Amino acid sequence: MANYLDATCDVTERVADLLGRMTLVEKCGQLNQRLYGWDTFVRDGEDFDVTAVFKDEVATFGGIGALYGLFRADPWSGMNHENGISRENSARVANLLQRYVMENTRLGIPMLLSEEVPHGHQALDSESYPVNLARGASFNRELQREIAAAIATEIRDKGVHLALASALDIMRDPRWGRAEECFSEDPYLAAEFTKAITTGFQESGEIAVILKHFAAQGEPVGGHNSGPVSIGMRELREIFLPPMVAATDALGVMAAYNEIDGVPCHANVDLLTGILRDELGFEGIVMADGCALDRLLNLMPDTKKAAALGLTAGVDLSLWDSVYPDLAAAVTAGEVDEALVDRAVSRVLRVKFELGLFEKPYVTEKVAEHSASWRTLNLQAAREAICLLENRKNVLPLRGAKHIAVIGPNADALYNQLGDYTAPQNMADGVTILQGLQNLAPENVTISYEKGSEVREKVINGVEKAVELANSADVIVLALGGSSARNFDMEFLNNGAVSSKGPNMDAGENVDVADLALPDAQIELFQAVRALGKPVVVVLVHGRPNAIPEISEQTDALLTAWYPGAQGGTAVAEVLFGITNPSGKLPVSIPRSSGQLPVYYNQKAGEYKEDYFDERGAALYNFGYGLSYSDFEYQKIETARTSLTIAELEAGEQFEFRVTIANNSDVAGQEVVQLYIHDEEASITRRKKELKDFQKIEIGARKTQEVVLKIGLAELQIWSIKNRWELEAGNVCIFVGGSSDTALETMIQIQNGVV
Amino acid sequence: MANYLDATCDVTERVADLLGRMTLVEKCGQLNQRLYGWDTFVRDGEDFDVTAVFKDEVATFGGIGALYGLFRADPWSGMNHENGISRENSARVANLLQRYVMENTRLGIPMLLSEEVPHGHQALDSESYPVNLARGASFNRELQREIAAAIATEIRDKGVHLALASALDIMRDPRWGRAEECFSEDPYLAAEFTKAITTGFQESGEIAVILKHFAAQGEPVGGHNSGPVSIGMRELREIFLPPMVAATDALGVMAAYNEIDGVPCHANVDLLTGILRDELGFEGIVMADGCALDRLLNLMPDTKKAAALGLTAGVDLSLWDSVYPDLAAAVTAGEVDEALVDRAVSRVLRVKFELGLFEKPYVTEKVAEHSASWRTLNLQAAREAICLLENRKNVLPLRGAKHIAVIGPNADALYNQLGDYTAPQNMADGVTILQGLQNLAPENVTISYEKGSEVREKVINGVEKAVELANSADVIVLALGGSSARNFDMEFLNNGAVSSKGPNMDAGENVDVADLALPDAQIELFQAVRALGKPVVVVLVHGRPNAIPEISEQTDALLTAWYPGAQGGTAVAEVLFGITNPSGKLPVSIPRSSGQLPVYYNQKAGEYKEDYFDERGAALYNFGYGLSYSDFEYQKIETARTSLTIAELEAGEQFEFRVTIANNSDVAGQEVVQLYIHDEEASITRRKKELKDFQKIEIGARKTQEVVLKIGLAELQIWSIKNRWELEAGNVCIFVGGSSDTALETMIQIQNGVV
Repeated sequence: MANYLDATCDVTERVADLLGRMTLVEKCGQLNQRLYGWDTFVRDGEDFDVTAVFKDEVATFGGIGALYGLFRADPWSGMNHENGISRENSARVANLLQRYVMENTRLGIPMLLSEEVPHGHQALDSESYPVNLARGASFNRELQREIAAAIATEIRDKGVHLALASALDIMRDPRWGRAEECFSEDPYLAAEFTKAITTGFQESGEIAVILKHFAAQGEPVGGHNSGPVSIGMRELREIFLPPMVAATDALGVMAAYNEIDGVPCHANVDLLTGILRDELGFEGIVMADGCALDRLLNLMPDTKKAAALGLTAGVDLSLWDSVYPDLAAAVTAGEVDEALVDRAVSRVLRVKFELGLFEKPYVTEKVAEHSASWRTLNLQAAREAICLLENRKNVLPLRGAKHIAVIGPNADALYNQLGDYTAPQNMADGVTILQGLQNLAPENVTISYEKGSEVREKVINGVEKAVELANSADVIVLALGGSSARNFDMEFLNNGAVSSKGPNMDAGENVDVADLALPDAQIELFQAVRALGKPVVVVLVHGRPNAIPEISEQTDALLTAWYPGAQGGTAVAEVLFGITNPSGKLPVSIPRSSGQLPVYYNQKAGEYKEDYFDERGAALYNFGYGLSYSDFEYQKIETARTSLTIAELEAGEQFEFRVTIANNSDVAGQEVVQLYIHDEEASITRRKKELKDFQKIEIGARKTQEVVLKIGLAELQIWSIKNRWELEAGNVCIFVGGSSDTALETMIQIQNGVV
Repeated sequence: MANYLDATCDVTERVADLLGRMTLVEKCGQLNQRLYGWDTFVRDGEDFDVTAVFKDEVATFGGIGALYGLFRADPWSGMNHENGISRENSARVANLLQRYVMENTRLGIPMLLSEEVPHGHQALDSESYPVNLARGASFNRELQREIAAAIATEIRDKGVHLALASALDIMRDPRWGRAEECFSEDPYLAAEFTKAITTGFQESGEIAVILKHFAAQGEPVGGHNSGPVSIGMRELREIFLPPMVAATDALGVMAAYNEIDGVPCHANVDLLTGILRDELGFEGIVMADGCALDRLLNLMPDTKKAAALGLTAGVDLSLWDSVYPDLAAAVTAGEVDEALVDRAVSRVLRVKFELGLFEKPYVTEKVAEHSASWRTLNLQAAREAICLLENRKNVLPLRGAKHIAVIGPNADALYNQLGDYTAPQNMADGVTILQGLQNLAPENVTISYEKGSEVREKVINGVEKAVELANSADVIVLALGGSSARNFDMEFLNNGAVSSKGPNMDAGENVDVADLALPDAQIELFQAVRALGKPVVVVLVHGRPNAIPEISEQTDALLTAWYPGAQGGTAVAEVLFGITNPSGKLPVSIPRSSGQLPVYYNQKAGEYKEDYFDERGAALYNFGYGLSYSDFEYQKIETARTSLTIAELEAGEQFEFRVTIANNSDVAGQEVVQLYIHDEEASITRRKKELKDFQKIEIGARKTQEVVLKIGLAELQIWSIKNRWELEAGNVCIFVGGSSDTALETMIQIQNGVV
């Protein structure tokens, strides 16, 4: 018989042994993640102690499954540099709490520390990277792995075990305030990146990633945060499941707030057990979203029944809710079988064993240093996030301007570059656009600044002052967009989502908008500056695609940096000055208006009316689009074998496409070569185009390069009329280019029999 | 053995006998509806003859299943009073063609004549009623039955057999150009009306209704006409199937253009056979939509395979496509079993037998007179369509005004009142708003008119002239809105949908809009007139709910007549002068903007963010809302039994609610008493409110009245987590009032066991 303390034993046996020693209450304690981390410690100068709240929780359940957000610092938690946990104190405080658990419980089961890492650790003194939507623009898988690995190292040294990372949400409705947390509107790109960050987070073996959110949260009705999703099972499989399919080795996922076609994800046995475990083979933890289990009370207005509903569906670990604390009572009352408790506890324990917590519950209390390599990586991520959308008369890169006027609400606003889920920053570590331009401007160039307007509201005399400044300049850089910045005077819901408004905020969790246009204050500022007739470069900093038809038409240059992170100002300045050649490609389509939604590129093929009577149906800018200072020419596509049989594809053979691209410019640059398919014969409707491979390559000035793109079974199978994944014989169009508006086309054939 | 010509035999046996005598080609001919009716005859003065096209078709297939649109007259068909079939010639021409078929085919199987009757027969000299959306506002079931019965009489006398009637589409996205063809956004109201018109059309036994469209066409992605629908099976059942469930005795349905979650309706065996026939017991014909079978070529680029796909799914009768003409070839090629052809032919033949066509293939060639009762009915329908939305300071009914200025693009535009699918009118039979006001104005009142603007475009000096006129008047009636009018100079697709634009058109089939606001030209006109400070009464004439926040806020009175039909001008004038007390209730929610969509009232309950950061989430006007000149007070609700067991409900017992309403005014009026439920405990998410009964009652001045509303099994069962209809125990909130913003509330309980 194995002993759970014996590291030489098989994990399954260790889990079984430990489980056999536990009481029902202790088991339920392992499924418990009720506390807010910031309520578990008190700080007095540089001394820390555990709180009565924490001691009570440990005593009540004879242990604790996981503790959320010990290091979280932000306006909601109220934690800041004065009262929070600095980088150098992190490991010490983590050990303090862990030691309390180990030494004050019968079995001494270590707890998991879970932390938010949507774009870096939401804690003091931590690196703040570009948000997912910005990172999506990179089309660079390896870069995502590196960022995740860097974050993993950073949090591991502080004593964190679970990395809560946005990844699974697909951005189908840009009105949704959490658009910034999505990698893309496209399932393939999101899947490739989810796979990359899962590898990155977990490659050390000491961190488990919790992928957020499962599933389909990116298409809530009306764009309302956590609103119902009414899609069918095929849409679910085609659009929302691919990131999960690509990352089944993740040790955790978080269930999504939304319902799908009437069934809340937290109560969805088909989703959390049928698809996730039985079909995909996922073996990690399913964590609840914050207070989401409480929402099951809308179905079952009894905490015990709601607990049974969640546990039966497959939710293993709670988050802040008042439902799972009643799990033991639910078992006692006969509402749910203890075997289901055992199932969930086993999963939690397994992760603890796999991360080596029983062998090494404490971390080294050295001062975990901020690595310079993280900053370098962060800057590179910001560079690759920038999508150049217009560059009329090659106004960019800026040349010869002696006086650059930098104007706009997002020109000198570090927090506006960072997105939601951001900790108080060390301002000296971040670079705004203004600062970036000042730092990188040639010696003889003057950089002047005027705010002009807030994100949503006018500034008194703001436009006048901006115009005055612009009048004295050679070129105007106008930094517009939105912001998810949270201030310490805002109000928050019990799950941390903001519930108040501010003049400088229009995005992030719980901040959905009906109108995707930029606020009037910004449009007015743009029009006033534009009217001067001087070159205007608009830089967008935002967390969702805005509808910007007038700006698109009237500006000289336009680029979006999304929320580019703390080093974003440097990256933008590098692009404007031509130090970096932009290579970002739009991870989402840019709409013309809210009335046009949805505009995602991968619409179903079919003979329906695309254009509206009063507006074009097509996006303003297409998915995958982005200019470069280089001039790339797609010259030809060659296919090794134009037909393969179903059997060959199932055996692993792939179609290979050799694409030749020339750089007809004197500037070396990076290009994202994108391959799309359109299936011409199928038992179900297919989409106009679907991204199925991409490669980011560097092409030297006046050079030609070949790149090989491949697709096989995974890319060609469909969720057929028989409701299963299968290959169907027929022709498939292949499109290749530098955006979803592709340049080259060829045809392949999937054949039934032998060729 | 039965003989198919023997009327004393059982229909099933007659079908079998006839089928047994038919060749494969003759069978396929019965599934054929390829021709446009207007191509089958030529007119020379008052003489008619059949065309070679028609003769060829009859010869090719040894008969013809059905002929579409013999009497159709409109810009698409090119038929008008000069070249088309007048009322008095109708029966004669029908007999001419029928006789040709009977006398020139081996078996002499009569053909079915199918005609469009979305709001009256789309033929010359025919009564043009309010569109469905307008009729939805009546909440008057009996009125719908009467209208359908009147249309049935009108077309029966002309020789028509199949009445193609919009009914099944639920208006979930107002951007969709066919919004006007929907009764409502609500499945219960639409189901009640579908049931009523099915009864009305078919009660004579001589007309078969073809209900359009099956299914879910009212929620196309982006509001794009015939766009894909991505909803799941529960949403399908809850929202889109109820009208079909309520009218399974219909002898026909038309399949919808759209796909549902990847499967085109025309290829959807689960929908057309599984649900429609196996589950609902429907036994009639499934007709294809126009050229819709051709669209299956997107799945199967071979006409034989596409024909097999449609036939296998359950499409019995084609419409204009090039696919079903290849059915015989498909059988011969082994693509589809002849048994499936037999199945479809049997259904077509059954309807022919049931309508008595074999006994009475010809109609009496009397001059079918236009009945005065139809006009009376039409006027009543128009009255009940009018929803009064604002009446500040009781500006309505108009009293004491000596000079009324009537202004706006829809003030004197008969075609703008009629909707899409409208034949050329006899102008003297219709009444515009201007004419209605002129006809009904007291002797001492002056009515003056100025157009002011077109629907979409400005008129030169239009605003100036309108302001000048308004300046001289005491009150201004401003008739704004939209139009689905088609002109003879427009261009059309092969299915009759318009493909060109016009200054006076913004709705109808294929005319979807991104922006639901009224066009700038109309807003400018409103603002200019409003600025005069005189009382302004805005009358909306439109086929979809427009987003009108400024008008709503600034006008003195606001009412919508939708497209009120040929008698609409009289009805509007009656309401404005107080001759009719308005009683219409909104059949759809009125949005504030396109960005807010969807705003239907029956959203899912759940803790999600309803309001946007920049706009309220709630509709501008709620479903079910509408003012009266009376002042109704909901006083109390009494429930006979507050709990029933599942067994009792399954046995047919119902909850009964006695509601007391007072009319606290000196004006008698009609009120629509509406009952909504919210299910508080269920295995799946329920909706905030769901309409489950309504009664329209008349309450005298200063009178109090009781009305009894009932709900039972049909209203309380849900498509449960087990994917079946069932009752689940728990509390259900009951709300009653004069709109979905209800006044009274009580609670009932569904119990598991014995009370």
